[in-house]
Amino acid sequence: MKLYDGGRAPNPRRVRVFLAEKGIEVQMVPVDMAGLEHKSALMTSRNPLQRLPVLELDDGTILTESVAICRYFEELHPEPALFGRGALGKAKVEMWQRRVELNLFMCVAAAFRHIHPAMKEWEVPQIPTWGEANKPKALDFLEILDGELASREFAAGDEYSIADITGLIAIDFMKPARMRVPEEFGNVIRWHQALSNRPSAAA
Amino acid sequence: MKLYDGGRAPNPRRVRVFLAEKGIEVQMVPVDMAGLEHKSALMTSRNPLQRLPVLELDDGTILTESVAICRYFEELHPEPALFGRGALGKAKVEMWQRRVELNLFMCVAAAFRHIHPAMKEWEVPQIPTWGEANKPKALDFLEILDGELASREFAAGDEYSIADITGLIAIDFMKPARMRVPEEFGNVIRWHQALSNRPSAAA
Repeated sequence: MKLYDGGRAPNPRRVRVFLAEKGIEVQMVPVDMAGLEHKSALMTSRNPLQRLPVLELDDGTILTESVAICRYFEELHPEPALFGRGALGKAKVEMWQRRVELNLFMCVAAAFRHIHPAMKEWEVPQIPTWGEANKPKALDFLEILDGELASREFAAGDEYSIADITGLIAIDFMKPARMRVPEEFGNVIRWHQALSNRPSAAA
Repeated sequence: MKLYDGGRAPNPRRVRVFLAEKGIEVQMVPVDMAGLEHKSALMTSRNPLQRLPVLELDDGTILTESVAICRYFEELHPEPALFGRGALGKAKVEMWQRRVELNLFMCVAAAFRHIHPAMKEWEVPQIPTWGEANKPKALDFLEILDGELASREFAAGDEYSIADITGLIAIDFMKPARMRVPEEFGNVIRWHQALSNRPSAAA
């Protein structure tokens, strides 16, 4: 199998961090997103949505969507469990993965894509008021998350999970979006630092 | 356990359709969203994000996020499998659930929330240009989906799954969003009709 990778973009990194935590090596095919190679005929034939990453199995089967690719590897290599254990554990990871993705990651992404001048030709139409409207949404969620992290180590409980990967990447994505975690959210800052210190964060 | 339900809103219905397909009965607690009861102190203590549905287990454990609640029931009652079977089948359902959710359901929701006059106090700030920008995004995805549905019965393959539930609800949500499936997308129309004909659609 091979993984068409998009370098510094957030979604490709989600899968690389996941693979690093699992200790799985996959053949990587770099795709030059800055050169719009993800919109080439070759990549469009693999993912008509023209997004990365894309996993291609040996028989030509295509999987897209970072979380779906991660789940495929979770099923093939269950340990360490990054989608939770048991019915309740799995549901809690799904809940927090989605909460972090929908209320933080996507808000930061909207702020970046709709405000940053470099995104003008990527996000059409670019709507700066929508980008600005997402910043307080992200901060509201960080406040909730900060309260949760007062009593546990990781986003979904006492074990590291894919919810933490989404959180690490969302918070790292705040920098190009010209946002920052307010100093009073000390639990979020401690959590992000711990995630950043793991070897997988370099992936 | 009990499920705090939100009546006609799309996310509560996702869980009800899922439960109907599984043949699972859960004690329902109606929450009056029109009366903003989901923002009451009681409901906020259960879900600080003030959204529905919310599942409360007998020991007081709270689960939120429609897809996470569905996954909990999938783990407790695996048949019929609505999240796919095997590593590849599960990954494909996750991929299509996400594709339909992120590229159709959320676009229709954005069009509804940012344009409909009744949403003025719900979506603050309401940004009509953002609502309008989402309509062509949804139609672009419907075109891709129509091509996929030319060769298979359901969104993720030959078996009904949670990806179809998300699709049913997204397309039904087009009506209040004042959108419609273009006539040329005959495969999408056939698929939506088949999903609507299942008894679960009445949930």
